[in-house]
Amino acid sequence: MNWHELWTASERYAEGKPALPHDAAPSWKLAIVTCMDARIDPVAVFGLHLGQAHVMRNAGGRVSDDVIRSLAVSQGALGTRAVLVMMHTRCGMLGLDPVSLRAPRPGAEPLDFLPLVSLESDLRADLAKIRESAWIYPDTALAGCIFDVDTGRVIPLASHG
Amino acid sequence: MNWHELWTASERYAEGKPALPHDAAPSWKLAIVTCMDARIDPVAVFGLHLGQAHVMRNAGGRVSDDVIRSLAVSQGALGTRAVLVMMHTRCGMLGLDPVSLRAPRPGAEPLDFLPLVSLESDLRADLAKIRESAWIYPDTALAGCIFDVDTGRVIPLASHG
Repeated sequence: MNWHELWTASERYAEGKPALPHDAAPSWKLAIVTCMDARIDPVAVFGLHLGQAHVMRNAGGRVSDDVIRSLAVSQGALGTRAVLVMMHTRCGMLGLDPVSLRAPRPGAEPLDFLPLVSLESDLRADLAKIRESAWIYPDTALAGCIFDVDTGRVIPLASHG
Repeated sequence: MNWHELWTASERYAEGKPALPHDAAPSWKLAIVTCMDARIDPVAVFGLHLGQAHVMRNAGGRVSDDVIRSLAVSQGALGTRAVLVMMHTRCGMLGLDPVSLRAPRPGAEPLDFLPLVSLESDLRADLAKIRESAWIYPDTALAGCIFDVDTGRVIPLASHG
C-alpha cells in the first residue's frame, strides 16, 4: 500500500480549509448506519455538510451490538434522536456463505458474519432491533432505505417520527 | 426528522449520475476504520473515488469485534489487504465516563463503551488487535493516523507494508 499517497491527499484536504464545526454534536441530531461498501458515499448521497450527522458503517450496514454501542453514545452523549439505516443492492453480505469465509490463520474465534437473506426483511428486523433496545431514546425517529448501487438511487422503505 | 429532505437530496445525487463501479471489490484493496464523528468525511480527507476503499465507522474508530467481522469479510470475500485506522482529536470517546451514560429505558444490557484513554496508545493497541487476529491475512499492510478536527490535518502515527 502506498501510504504516502494517502498522506499527500490529506495535506491537500487540509490546505483547502474545510469548514469544520467546533461542536461534536451533530446539528441534524441524526445518525446514519450503512454498509462499508466502497460504492457508497453517504455524505454525497444525502448532500451532508460537515457536522450534520454521525455515520456508522460495517459489513452489510447491520445493526450489530457495536452499532447499538455507537448509537448509545451518539444519543446519550451527543444528543442525536434520529436513525437512518441504509442497506444496498448487490451487497456482498447477501447470501454470503459463512463456510466460504475461512480464517487465513489457525486459532480464529468463530464469528457470526450477520449475512443478509432478504434486504427488505433484514432491514425491517434491524430497525426493530433499534426500536426495542433500552439504550435507544423512546422519541427516536427511525427510517430505513435501500441504495441501488447501479443507479445511485435511494429507495425509502420505512420511516416514522 | 424531515426524512423528505434526505430523500430529495438523494434524488439530486442520482440525477448527477455518479460514477458507480460495477465491482464490489475495492480497487485500492484498502479498508479504512474511523470514528462516526460528524466532522470527519474520510472520502474527502483522502480524496477517494467511488470503488476504491471500504469504510468502517463506529464510536471512536475502535477495532471492535464488529470491525474484525467487517475486516474478515473485506479481506476474505472482497480481497482487501491494507487497513488504515484513523482516530481523531477531541473525540467524544476520550475520557468518556461510562457511568455518565445511562440507558433511557429500563432493562438495558450492560455495554462496554470502549472509551479512549490516550489516542496514541489506544490506536497502537487497536492496530495490534488487527495484526494479531487470525481473521486477518498475514500480508496485510497496516497504518494508523490521527485526524485533527480543528485544522483538518492528518498526523500519520505508524505504518508498515
